[in-house]
Amino acid sequence: MTKPPLGRDTRLCMSLSGRPSNFGTRLHNRLYELTGLDYVYKAFTTRDLAAAIGGIRALGIRGCAISMPFKEAVIPMLDALEPSARAIDSVNTIVNDDGHLTGHNTDYSAVAALIGDVDPATPFLLRGSGGMAKAVAAALRDAGFRHGTIVARTEARGAPLAAQYGFVWRPTLEAEGAPLLINVTPLGMEGPEAETLAFPEPMIAAAQIVFDVVTLPVETPLLRAAERLGKRRILGADVMVLQAIEQFRLYTGVTPTAAQVAEAAAFARAA
Amino acid sequence: MTKPPLGRDTRLCMSLSGRPSNFGTRLHNRLYELTGLDYVYKAFTTRDLAAAIGGIRALGIRGCAISMPFKEAVIPMLDALEPSARAIDSVNTIVNDDGHLTGHNTDYSAVAALIGDVDPATPFLLRGSGGMAKAVAAALRDAGFRHGTIVARTEARGAPLAAQYGFVWRPTLEAEGAPLLINVTPLGMEGPEAETLAFPEPMIAAAQIVFDVVTLPVETPLLRAAERLGKRRILGADVMVLQAIEQFRLYTGVTPTAAQVAEAAAFARAA
Repeated sequence: MTKPPLGRDTRLCMSLSGRPSNFGTRLHNRLYELTGLDYVYKAFTTRDLAAAIGGIRALGIRGCAISMPFKEAVIPMLDALEPSARAIDSVNTIVNDDGHLTGHNTDYSAVAALIGDVDPATPFLLRGSGGMAKAVAAALRDAGFRHGTIVARTEARGAPLAAQYGFVWRPTLEAEGAPLLINVTPLGMEGPEAETLAFPEPMIAAAQIVFDVVTLPVETPLLRAAERLGKRRILGADVMVLQAIEQFRLYTGVTPTAAQVAEAAAFARAA
Repeated sequence: MTKPPLGRDTRLCMSLSGRPSNFGTRLHNRLYELTGLDYVYKAFTTRDLAAAIGGIRALGIRGCAISMPFKEAVIPMLDALEPSARAIDSVNTIVNDDGHLTGHNTDYSAVAALIGDVDPATPFLLRGSGGMAKAVAAALRDAGFRHGTIVARTEARGAPLAAQYGFVWRPTLEAEGAPLLINVTPLGMEGPEAETLAFPEPMIAAAQIVFDVVTLPVETPLLRAAERLGKRRILGADVMVLQAIEQFRLYTGVTPTAAQVAEAAAFARAA
């Protein structure tokens, strides 16, 4: 399929975040090329969220990805919230139907899909207490997981998060691990903590599944150790792609093929 | 030069009009390709002009073409007006410098450029009384033309327009023509009046220069007659391209070459 040249009927989708990345812009535009859809995608930031959302409505911009620091602030500016967003009081996706703005959370949906075949009887240990930790905890709870521990240094963040979803809070990692280990901290992310293993090696060795939400690099020290120890892995990079594909589907109504997704994701990561 | 793939630093320019056309979107995007600039252009309409302009400001959209019916209504929403817009109280271009919105009128500038080498002592006859007639009358007055007649059926529109710029108003064409004939009505435009000659043939034969602001088709009956009778012609299609190139220059700081303009204009007209 050949994407038509940009014209009057081309639809715009966009993102709003404090620090725009190239990933979404490259992924979506490549998928438009591969599927022949008459769309274009562009990342934005703003110092005036309300005016930006008003502009989305007034200009008929079809969809908008929402990233930090706007995911909660945007909620009162919308007309409706889907269950995915209501589950965690956080919006990462706006769909504009002729001026009617609906908030979704495709991080939640992507995590829910990726853990969909894990037995919910599996106990887990989750490190982290930020927005993405909330999405993961909510998806686990809604998938039927009941035996989980949230490990977060700051009680004021970790304890309420655990309590909200019926899990246990602990301030530090202790000797005892769990069959499902989940990292939702920046440990292992490019930057000062790039070399830090989010869970100690014996804990990884004793686990069955390792889930790292870090996306950059795709292969964190945690995921490399899990690979080496023969564990099943769930990658943050897959969450990132899956949630973007769900946005694509919400905006366009089209589900790209696995081959199209793989090509577009590789292109987006090459930036 | 190769235009980079769309990414986080790509700048958006746009248009706002009651009925978006393909011309601007195709022209600007083709020029971005030819000049290798990291920009993208997209046409919009809106039912909420104030929110749309607020969105331009909040999203850092670099520039916006303004067409009917927004050219006057937009003025109070801007931070500054350039002389080209102030000359006719009409804005067809917004430049956004980090949230500071300046209104320009590149129709006025394009007309001024195209009549720049016509002797201002030349008497003219101008048919029409709409927004573009105002741009042409103002450009003529500001170029030093003093002997002009505005022909417009409706006194309530024609007489004040003529008075504002120091010209004479007449309700109908009479036998007497002028060396410079200017059509700023839809006569000769694609549609019900496509076959109508805006000035009678003897008047064209007696003139020196014929200026038709109609852009579709490029060659109106008036312009074909002027060609046949060996008159100098000024084409509406050239006004349309020249005003868009001035917008391009205001948004990007880059002046495309004549060859690039010709190629992009041909591409834009092919839609």
